[in-house]
Amino acid sequence: MENFEFYTPTKIYFGRDTHKKVGEIIAGYGFHKILLHYGGGSIHRSGLYNAIVTSLREHDIAWVELGGVSPNPKLSLAKQGMELCRAENVEFILAAGGGSVLDSAKCIADGAANPDVETWEFFEKKREPQGALPVGAILTLAASGSEMSASCVITNEEGWFKRGFNSPYHRPLFSILNPELTFTVSPFQTGCGIVDIMMHTMERYFTLSENVDLTDHLAEGLLKSVIAAGKRAIDNPRDYEARATLMWAGSLSHNDLTGAGRQVFMGVHQMEHELSGMYDFVAHGAGLSVLFPAWAKFQYPYATQRFCQFAVRVWNLEMDYEHPEETAKAGIAATEAFFASLGMPVRLRELGIGAEKLEEMAEKCTFFGKRILPDYKPLGKAEIMEIYRLALG
Amino acid sequence: MENFEFYTPTKIYFGRDTHKKVGEIIAGYGFHKILLHYGGGSIHRSGLYNAIVTSLREHDIAWVELGGVSPNPKLSLAKQGMELCRAENVEFILAAGGGSVLDSAKCIADGAANPDVETWEFFEKKREPQGALPVGAILTLAASGSEMSASCVITNEEGWFKRGFNSPYHRPLFSILNPELTFTVSPFQTGCGIVDIMMHTMERYFTLSENVDLTDHLAEGLLKSVIAAGKRAIDNPRDYEARATLMWAGSLSHNDLTGAGRQVFMGVHQMEHELSGMYDFVAHGAGLSVLFPAWAKFQYPYATQRFCQFAVRVWNLEMDYEHPEETAKAGIAATEAFFASLGMPVRLRELGIGAEKLEEMAEKCTFFGKRILPDYKPLGKAEIMEIYRLALG
Repeated sequence: MENFEFYTPTKIYFGRDTHKKVGEIIAGYGFHKILLHYGGGSIHRSGLYNAIVTSLREHDIAWVELGGVSPNPKLSLAKQGMELCRAENVEFILAAGGGSVLDSAKCIADGAANPDVETWEFFEKKREPQGALPVGAILTLAASGSEMSASCVITNEEGWFKRGFNSPYHRPLFSILNPELTFTVSPFQTGCGIVDIMMHTMERYFTLSENVDLTDHLAEGLLKSVIAAGKRAIDNPRDYEARATLMWAGSLSHNDLTGAGRQVFMGVHQMEHELSGMYDFVAHGAGLSVLFPAWAKFQYPYATQRFCQFAVRVWNLEMDYEHPEETAKAGIAATEAFFASLGMPVRLRELGIGAEKLEEMAEKCTFFGKRILPDYKPLGKAEIMEIYRLALG
Repeated sequence: MENFEFYTPTKIYFGRDTHKKVGEIIAGYGFHKILLHYGGGSIHRSGLYNAIVTSLREHDIAWVELGGVSPNPKLSLAKQGMELCRAENVEFILAAGGGSVLDSAKCIADGAANPDVETWEFFEKKREPQGALPVGAILTLAASGSEMSASCVITNEEGWFKRGFNSPYHRPLFSILNPELTFTVSPFQTGCGIVDIMMHTMERYFTLSENVDLTDHLAEGLLKSVIAAGKRAIDNPRDYEARATLMWAGSLSHNDLTGAGRQVFMGVHQMEHELSGMYDFVAHGAGLSVLFPAWAKFQYPYATQRFCQFAVRVWNLEMDYEHPEETAKAGIAATEAFFASLGMPVRLRELGIGAEKLEEMAEKCTFFGKRILPDYKPLGKAEIMEIYRLALG
């Protein structure tokens, strides 16, 4: 087990009707003026918007609004938010939506509190923020884990770079998790979320670190629960217990619990960021669903026993002690079949993507040859190209 | 899944040499004057005391000291600590030790910040503290989970009442977890810690709440890791990885992770508090080791399927679908045998305790008939008496 720090200060309010307390919760922190940040029209259609502003009014909290966050949230909108926060002396940002809205809110929070710095430099890891506005969330999508995580991923339209960075200031002050708010999430978006949750766990699971039995078991348990609940949530979108399992698993999958004491690479995420950064129509979860099987087929010969453990403990497959590579492959196949059963794509061609831009994506992913991603077999441009090609189908 | 709140703000510094940063960490919070609180002489013998004061001096942090915390920490010593904190304008309490030192520090913190209240009234649940001094920890024993928990358990020598209460103010600001500091813990104390960690998990596991698959899996995974690491830590006290697994599992077992969304009873803990409150020589873990098998033998007919799940998933036993009660009993027997293999007592007679005071303990545990403990079969005085008798041996 490696040395680690663990810090998850976000207070969670989980369960039915919890979103109705948002005004009371914010007032408890002493904030009087907030930015209400959201995406498209769904929070109006669902009634969430009305519930929020009713609660804010009841607790004398003034607000300004910024909607319009898109999937793969954009730097340009976040910059509008930063200006709004400064002009209106906003003290706190409430993100009402999924991971995109949360990440956009975190980016606004970074920029608003660091006005003399070009915010993108944080994402290029040239600087670190010296504080941020506090952020809180009402989550409407179980997927990104951003509601408890230190991460923030933003797309810069100038060059279509999708980059993320971690900061302790990105941990929300609180997150309100009401599974009922995810009843209306479409089967496709539900599938994307399930893949994202599983990948946050699996990218921590496939590690080079040894003696990580405890976090292995936690990760395996989380994955088994998500696999069972995922099927049920797709079959019956209003299955509260399935939605609740996905929602809580989403938070635990990315709050560092399953990564404590391990080297974490997130290589599939890195490669996916180039994919959905290049092709804006690609949902993050769909990109992960395509790239994990390709990554796994490329890497399993270099970590066969770990892939066997995954196959046996997560997918309940029998170990083939004479041919462990067969067990490893069966675990990968089971994962791919599960993703497909959720309606997720598992090949680039299903997304209408061919080989045209694979080289450019591999270039960007290696920072134009300046970095090699650590992995079982480390990933330079040639290895990433091979994985992208394996994903073509 | 029940609605829940989840709040674990304690920052964890985990791993080798982390205790040497204590001065830097405390200085980072801006504290200048602290109380260093500890138990007997072990922190002097181990060199921990010197490492702490060296680090405090390097960061210009002044301190006063209070040692002498005993197992089953006493209210009278905590009251000395409260006076010392007030007289010396202490800003922060550093607990260097195990759960007893931590709980004593939390009690001091409650009392120091609420000078106009009789502190014991918090433990009698007649009042709630309005704030507390901040507490941090350097942990030397993997057991109580107090290093991340909201709980605090103190023994009042006036009547030998052992009582606990939870407060968000009890969550330490930070906890430093260096598994090397537990290398010198005796086999008996190691065994006590293993039982305590398992029981914090199992008392949350045996719940009436339904649809708790995710937390079930997390708990089962944690238990399997602790069982494997526990044997290794007893066999080789300097096995870093085994000690590390126990230490991190200890924190996770009592920070509410495995209890999220569940009704939690802690009935075995309640009955044990009467036992070690009455017989001060009984270590908490040893009391739990005696009482769990008795509690389980009493309760399994009322929750047979859950005891079967425990037997199959935690102990890898085969389910006897024709006779599920046999599987349930086999899981209880496996647990009892494991506790005994650690050198723990599993009957009161092994502790030299007979039937003399069982009735008095049952009286106290039910607040003299004023409460019934919720459980599969709720526990009034008669049921508690029966469990104590089952534990006699």
